[in-house]
Amino acid sequence: MGKTVAAGLLLSIACHGCTTERAAPVSSRSAAPKMILIIGDGMDQHQITIARNYLVGYEGRLTLDTLPERSSVQTQTLAEEDPRVPEYVPDSANTATSMASGVVTSAGRIGTTAGTDRDTLSIMELAAAAGFGTGIVTTSSVTDATPASFVAHVNQRLCESPRAMVTSNPTNPAFASDCSKDLKSNGGKGSIAEQIAASSIDIVLGGGVRNFDQLAEGETTRTVSDLAAENGYRLVRTPAELAALTVGGKVLGLFAPGTMSVQWRGAGDARAEEVAHVDGRAIYPEAFGCEPNPDFAMMPTLESMARAALVQLGDGDSFVLMIESASIDKQSHLRRPCGQIGELKQLDETVKMVLDYARAHPETLVLVTADHSQAAQLIPETSVLAALNAASPGHFARVRTLEGAVMGINYATNDSSSQEDHSGADVPLFAYGPGAEEIPAQIRQTDIFGLMLGHLGLAPPTSAPTP
Amino acid sequence: MGKTVAAGLLLSIACHGCTTERAAPVSSRSAAPKMILIIGDGMDQHQITIARNYLVGYEGRLTLDTLPERSSVQTQTLAEEDPRVPEYVPDSANTATSMASGVVTSAGRIGTTAGTDRDTLSIMELAAAAGFGTGIVTTSSVTDATPASFVAHVNQRLCESPRAMVTSNPTNPAFASDCSKDLKSNGGKGSIAEQIAASSIDIVLGGGVRNFDQLAEGETTRTVSDLAAENGYRLVRTPAELAALTVGGKVLGLFAPGTMSVQWRGAGDARAEEVAHVDGRAIYPEAFGCEPNPDFAMMPTLESMARAALVQLGDGDSFVLMIESASIDKQSHLRRPCGQIGELKQLDETVKMVLDYARAHPETLVLVTADHSQAAQLIPETSVLAALNAASPGHFARVRTLEGAVMGINYATNDSSSQEDHSGADVPLFAYGPGAEEIPAQIRQTDIFGLMLGHLGLAPPTSAPTP
Repeated sequence: MGKTVAAGLLLSIACHGCTTERAAPVSSRSAAPKMILIIGDGMDQHQITIARNYLVGYEGRLTLDTLPERSSVQTQTLAEEDPRVPEYVPDSANTATSMASGVVTSAGRIGTTAGTDRDTLSIMELAAAAGFGTGIVTTSSVTDATPASFVAHVNQRLCESPRAMVTSNPTNPAFASDCSKDLKSNGGKGSIAEQIAASSIDIVLGGGVRNFDQLAEGETTRTVSDLAAENGYRLVRTPAELAALTVGGKVLGLFAPGTMSVQWRGAGDARAEEVAHVDGRAIYPEAFGCEPNPDFAMMPTLESMARAALVQLGDGDSFVLMIESASIDKQSHLRRPCGQIGELKQLDETVKMVLDYARAHPETLVLVTADHSQAAQLIPETSVLAALNAASPGHFARVRTLEGAVMGINYATNDSSSQEDHSGADVPLFAYGPGAEEIPAQIRQTDIFGLMLGHLGLAPPTSAPTP
Repeated sequence: MGKTVAAGLLLSIACHGCTTERAAPVSSRSAAPKMILIIGDGMDQHQITIARNYLVGYEGRLTLDTLPERSSVQTQTLAEEDPRVPEYVPDSANTATSMASGVVTSAGRIGTTAGTDRDTLSIMELAAAAGFGTGIVTTSSVTDATPASFVAHVNQRLCESPRAMVTSNPTNPAFASDCSKDLKSNGGKGSIAEQIAASSIDIVLGGGVRNFDQLAEGETTRTVSDLAAENGYRLVRTPAELAALTVGGKVLGLFAPGTMSVQWRGAGDARAEEVAHVDGRAIYPEAFGCEPNPDFAMMPTLESMARAALVQLGDGDSFVLMIESASIDKQSHLRRPCGQIGELKQLDETVKMVLDYARAHPETLVLVTADHSQAAQLIPETSVLAALNAASPGHFARVRTLEGAVMGINYATNDSSSQEDHSGADVPLFAYGPGAEEIPAQIRQTDIFGLMLGHLGLAPPTSAPTP
């Protein structure tokens, strides 16, 4: 008999049909260590300050701000062509690989080493081998770089689906390697979607249906979803199905064709734009507020997905759960400040729920971090030199906050019409739980792997791959 | 009998003529609490990561990175016209006032409240009233916003000198208030330089001679320097005089007409520049390294000034010492990455010396922080979209590091030809010493005042001014 997903006793919701084994009272709970890693993609200090100003005002505090311990995380990236040389701005693939596997690699790589293309061993694989529960929750496609790095091993983040392996082979010159070596027919493990379908991860929730509703490599009738089902995955496609889910077995929940829709957008879909100059005068853009994104209506929230994962993983056993708010990054790429703020709100609400869980389960270590920093900068809403008609280059937005002031937010890493680049500053780490107070004030991203291993009592891989 | 400044026993240099009272062996030292606040002006996480990459490489650690405790500091700024409404990007005047006095005020204000123009009470004034030592060390003019906020009270940061009070009255529309109310002839306290000259701060070191070698207000023959001398200040003008200084009395050391020259510059004086586009192609600027700035030759280092201040303040008594590396900010304003890196190097070397002092004087609390964030961003040295000829808008530099890689650094807060704006992200706080481990992971800038008061055992002002 299972319990419904929307119904964990520990999550303050009525629990129908809970087994006592999986939802025992606090006093009798096992102390099996539990590990929850929450990643705000691109959530650097600018994004946090911007979101705080909008969500709770300049005198308010985010839940993030209340976490008791804080560190700063240096990202590290190697050049694919010469892995002895660093690059100073990472992508989500190499940073997630650093967190998941403790290995520094090159931009675009998923669970593989720079140059030498050896598979790394992820915390999820080590946890599963130890019999622990494992879960991945994201608002992106589950095949996107951050979640993929916790479960898959491919040359290149774009190798998401069987079709991508052969038709979308790397057209992005930023990523030096390609997918061909990873084809099953070439002795590889197949696309990221196929590797997820073949995996032992207990629960995988996010977007990306289109990568699973394709024929698998070498198959004439079976899709990747079919392979997942054969491997024991129950397939979930709607928030209603998620809410009705019973505990047990493996779950693959996919709620959007690709990236899940975001919760907020600028009023009237406003975003940052280039500042017009007319007769030498800078015409600053109109200020706008944020509004709900209608496309979000059919999405489960990040918090509800994370809650469902916690219920599936249960209260008794050890587990490792990675939860990602992916579109803080994606909306910053697209110069959409309200989108970013809404996705940071989703993360903050998830952190609140997870902290409640961790208080009830003191054997839980919660780490909240970002994978890399992003383009958006909080700048004056009118330049100090506005009288001289100075204005932001690049793209600029003026966002009206709920306390009646205006934030200036610029996006100026490149002048393309399509999207911004990442930036390379250290990112924050917030921590709650056993050992949190012992985390040094400054760490490297690979140390997050060690912190997770240590908390779970897992031995490090005996032959860690080196670049 | 005094001891020479370059000769503190505790600073590992031979001490000639030390009095046993001021340089007793460790075992007999008093536990009088000592407070050292180090401010990197504009030193946000981008500036720190950029400097680390250059100074110690991607596998190295700055001294800053080794401080045991870390917090994040929210800056707060009010609108002068309506102090109930926040602004989201501060300046160095209001942020230094927050740290010095625990009061949130408007941009440009020095030790006065937004709108109501009431004088605040600074940690230096409270410490002096308690009989503690006081010191201010900066690489800017000592009359510049950050140091001024610890000692002076004026409407406006530009009121630096008697001449500025009447001839340079606010032409900068970013700062709403003006100097006239602060004229002594109008019942005010006079310019910042005159307030420093009349102060009880034990040691003041930095730049700004030109603000002191002016006739004081209402005087026909006496300069501000003359007034300082009459108030007991010994005037020091060269590194040699600083090195020969004996302990005792008050010291005013001014080593440059205005801001002190910085230690480094780009090779051949290179700085960030606009990316040229020729026939639709982006022509990225040539990468450059850093080199010593010849103008720095006649300057004392920040570390040597801080060391001199520590010797003057002695080992026995309580003191509060503010040390600022000012030109991390100023060089970022001017789009000079090597200048920023060199001034962060000066700060890091000073932190190292101060930590040595604090280890020998465990009654010392060391706080290192920034006042606000800045424009410079670490971005890809070639855009992910470089194949599409995307390049940084604004001003862009490619800095070649000592480990053979290249950092992209952009400055894109406004398109003026003169200088960048600040940015508004939370800034880091690093801490070492008694109580450091109890500092919350997230604080506000005004909390720094409380931390200093608490460490020194001083009571908060009974009638704190409110906006």
